[in-house]
Amino acid sequence: MSVFKFALAVLLVSSLWHSSLSLDNGVALTPPMGWLAWERYACNTNCKDDPDNCIGEKLFMRMADHIASDGFKDAGYQYINIDDCWASKERDSQGRLQADPDRFPSGIAALANYVHSKGLKLGIYADYGTHTCGGYPGSGPSMKLDIDTFASWGIDMLKMDGCNANIDGMPQGYKQVSDYLNATGRHIVFSCSWPAYWVGSGKTVNYTYAGETCNLWRNYHDISDSWDSVTSIIDYYAKEEDDLIPAAGPGHWNDPDMLIVGDFGLSVDEQQAQMAIWSILSAPLLMSNDLSTISDESKAILQNSDVISVSQDKLGHQGKVVATVGKVRVFSKLLSDNSMAVVFFNSGSFAGPQNVTVTFQTVGLSSSKATVKDLFQQKDLGTFQGSFTTPVDPSSVVMVKMTPA
Amino acid sequence: MSVFKFALAVLLVSSLWHSSLSLDNGVALTPPMGWLAWERYACNTNCKDDPDNCIGEKLFMRMADHIASDGFKDAGYQYINIDDCWASKERDSQGRLQADPDRFPSGIAALANYVHSKGLKLGIYADYGTHTCGGYPGSGPSMKLDIDTFASWGIDMLKMDGCNANIDGMPQGYKQVSDYLNATGRHIVFSCSWPAYWVGSGKTVNYTYAGETCNLWRNYHDISDSWDSVTSIIDYYAKEEDDLIPAAGPGHWNDPDMLIVGDFGLSVDEQQAQMAIWSILSAPLLMSNDLSTISDESKAILQNSDVISVSQDKLGHQGKVVATVGKVRVFSKLLSDNSMAVVFFNSGSFAGPQNVTVTFQTVGLSSSKATVKDLFQQKDLGTFQGSFTTPVDPSSVVMVKMTPA
Repeated sequence: MSVFKFALAVLLVSSLWHSSLSLDNGVALTPPMGWLAWERYACNTNCKDDPDNCIGEKLFMRMADHIASDGFKDAGYQYINIDDCWASKERDSQGRLQADPDRFPSGIAALANYVHSKGLKLGIYADYGTHTCGGYPGSGPSMKLDIDTFASWGIDMLKMDGCNANIDGMPQGYKQVSDYLNATGRHIVFSCSWPAYWVGSGKTVNYTYAGETCNLWRNYHDISDSWDSVTSIIDYYAKEEDDLIPAAGPGHWNDPDMLIVGDFGLSVDEQQAQMAIWSILSAPLLMSNDLSTISDESKAILQNSDVISVSQDKLGHQGKVVATVGKVRVFSKLLSDNSMAVVFFNSGSFAGPQNVTVTFQTVGLSSSKATVKDLFQQKDLGTFQGSFTTPVDPSSVVMVKMTPA
Repeated sequence: MSVFKFALAVLLVSSLWHSSLSLDNGVALTPPMGWLAWERYACNTNCKDDPDNCIGEKLFMRMADHIASDGFKDAGYQYINIDDCWASKERDSQGRLQADPDRFPSGIAALANYVHSKGLKLGIYADYGTHTCGGYPGSGPSMKLDIDTFASWGIDMLKMDGCNANIDGMPQGYKQVSDYLNATGRHIVFSCSWPAYWVGSGKTVNYTYAGETCNLWRNYHDISDSWDSVTSIIDYYAKEEDDLIPAAGPGHWNDPDMLIVGDFGLSVDEQQAQMAIWSILSAPLLMSNDLSTISDESKAILQNSDVISVSQDKLGHQGKVVATVGKVRVFSKLLSDNSMAVVFFNSGSFAGPQNVTVTFQTVGLSSSKATVKDLFQQKDLGTFQGSFTTPVDPSSVVMVKMTPA
């Protein structure tokens, strides 16, 4: 073997090694933040009777306007993501996916341009099987073409659902999709649904593998607009944390699904709770709500800079449960400045607050003395020695940052 | 038989007939409105560590102050009701119940005076069995003495729970209590828990009989501070309405338990929903919340005069389900001015509003033309012909009054 050939072989092996173990697209180094249509708008295609709420370019342009103008972009929200039901039921003459011409008369490329002109990014939805969950054309039969189409449109994020597909082959199949994405040269965040389908059918997910081939992945039921739904997801994440935590980090995140803050089913306390737990879990922060009508209270929760700092901390640790006291679970997350974010989460639904004490050792603080800041109140609470005690209201959180002093 | 003896006999029979068929105390001619400690404060007796939230005279005085000063009294709220855990574990030297001396140092009579001085009324709690649910002395062994004690203190409402008791004899036993109450000469609203215990043990409740011997009666699980709890109660009332509706009317009401509006577990929409449904069902409106910290939004819901007018309508009809369209149930209630109150209740928890149309005939309107007023928005919507259509958000209500035009 000549030196040249050897060098070439090293390059090839290195390249193969690289593409086989990593979706090396350099994106989602912190949990993606943005907006996703599904929970709030679902598959509403009735633009005739419901023009403001149907899945069409006007909806996404309006949300982009709100993200850009109402403080969300400044807070870190960036992705405007289309979900199912955007496509025409027919592919074009060259077999390419195309948007429904009535609801997206300008087409997706034009929508991407519009979103980019606001300094934001556009996400789209496809399905790994023959059809999407809503019955639109699936990408299974022409995956490479569809990925190239998305790249040509200027898409920045792709959610690949898993309806109407062979579940068994998904881990390898989604890996193939990630290779197609890499090959486009465009940096497209890749959201994989296969772990959710695997969990749903009782299979054991290799989350390390998921993290090597996807930027984020769903692994549990779709969220709906209720506290019940939120708590069932939190319970799942707490129960499975030993498997989930090692998989999370810069570029690869467990995805407990959308934020429903600003919708109909959560009290103000419960909205804070979802925001707090999603942030301490380093979950993607993809709102699904109507930014035209959202209340100031909900906006303040979604734009709280202290809470978002916990979410976007560059270490990318996923917080873990460090104590359970009665109905209160305590989550903690190491931050890059050596402080700890701590969430006290009361899942109870009766009477008044429960008092909870945790020692600094329990939450993982290296120091026996720490300053404590309440992140929703954005208020310094003082310096504490050895432990911290707080009342926690039912279906509420207290979220603090503890910094060694 | 002499004429005199005959007349005496008629009087006796009439008196017996009367007392056997009716709790004739002239109170609760509309559903009672007020405040009840249980859901929010439960059996918190720890006044040392939690002086503001423990069951003691200060709590009830503070709530009376808020009711009197913050618009609640003007809106119709009147009763300040003590629940379990108020009593000393020991009866006094004469065998009478006495309040815990540390938490009620002035005693219940003084508290009643205080509450009366605000133009309000005081309610108390007792148990039909040997001990209360919280383990305090029950009234079973000395019922007449306890009733006379309550009357001597100036009590205006009595909730008689049913822990630690023989369930079988309750209907007759509670009737005996109502006779004792009548005999005091004081007009004491009587809240009976026996139907809840009977339902809980699978027995069939004779609600007509309940309505003849009680002013209000619980018949389902205790409410807790969650939407789940609220919807399970609404579902129960809808399912059982054929049995429940005939029993309700001036002086006698089905009681689905406390309002949790202003607590931690309901969104603003859900708070409106509970207030709307309780009002259209002619349920007692007994808040259990912290009136010191309640938000303006919650206060506005609780004090909405249009909604309260539906609750307090003098006909005293209990609203019924007249249509179910998808996730939306439509309740209607005839009011004394010949208009109909109508609540559209969406129990769904996904995506956006559902559009619902009902004909005027369906809701029971006598006219084919009606003006419609939105009661939460307090806004006239115009005159409609034949039917009314409205979008209803998930876990929300639209509540209107339809008046023949």
